[in-house]
Amino acid sequence: MKGQKRTLRSHCPINFAVEVVGDKWSLLIVRDIAFWGKLTFGDFSGSKEKIASNILASRLERLVAEGILEKNEDSEDRRKDFYTLTDKGLDLIPLLLEMVSWSERYDAGAEARRQQGFVSRIRKDRDALNAELKKRVKAGGSVFGGAA
Amino acid sequence: MKGQKRTLRSHCPINFAVEVVGDKWSLLIVRDIAFWGKLTFGDFSGSKEKIASNILASRLERLVAEGILEKNEDSEDRRKDFYTLTDKGLDLIPLLLEMVSWSERYDAGAEARRQQGFVSRIRKDRDALNAELKKRVKAGGSVFGGAA
Repeated sequence: MKGQKRTLRSHCPINFAVEVVGDKWSLLIVRDIAFWGKLTFGDFSGSKEKIASNILASRLERLVAEGILEKNEDSEDRRKDFYTLTDKGLDLIPLLLEMVSWSERYDAGAEARRQQGFVSRIRKDRDALNAELKKRVKAGGSVFGGAA
Repeated sequence: MKGQKRTLRSHCPINFAVEVVGDKWSLLIVRDIAFWGKLTFGDFSGSKEKIASNILASRLERLVAEGILEKNEDSEDRRKDFYTLTDKGLDLIPLLLEMVSWSERYDAGAEARRQQGFVSRIRKDRDALNAELKKRVKAGGSVFGGAA
């Protein structure tokens, strides 16, 4: 993290990713921004996995410290503070797409099964899709919606 | 999980993957088998992230219940029980490779930086690499070593 020395269990690259985003919530916040164009604390609170406010606050702070999110403060109204993905965060999109592909295969109830065209692109046209989505999200759009 | 009804926070495919393998240890166990050919409780205990025995036992049980690992019991010596990846587990290899690629970029100390040829294949020849590794691990080999 910025400004403090991290103690990693190991420098195995799989362990690094697990330590940075391998908890029950971090990747859902990255998803909310990248896939659904969510921006604010209130937006993330409203997601259907129902993250508790104190956990959300701590995860947002951590993701900013990790350099995955950037916080843009509104000087007049804290509820309007919004979060965007840095390049380090945007580069998690390929990981999210692999998760979509895997879950579509193994969760019979996966919502991804209603998005066959999208899943098919993940499997057959991944590099182009990754590049396209990174560009779109970086410009303020999202995978499945506009800004929230 | 097999034999019990799972209550998911949502059927978002990203959430599904997070709920199944999004903890601090599960993907390290999958890594140990796929990348290093580890097989037994003792092998996993020896990994440098130093998982505690009780947590390891609970994770192994859970990964078997999830259908990600298969447990092969030795009738005479429990220490020789060994674990292999099912197809569902083998299909996590692409996710692990994305983690390697991301960490190689963002962890200055990543061991992956000493494996440039491998990282380069992840980025440029991913589909062939995924297929090759799945086949190799399924046959009892591993990404970086033989059986432990």
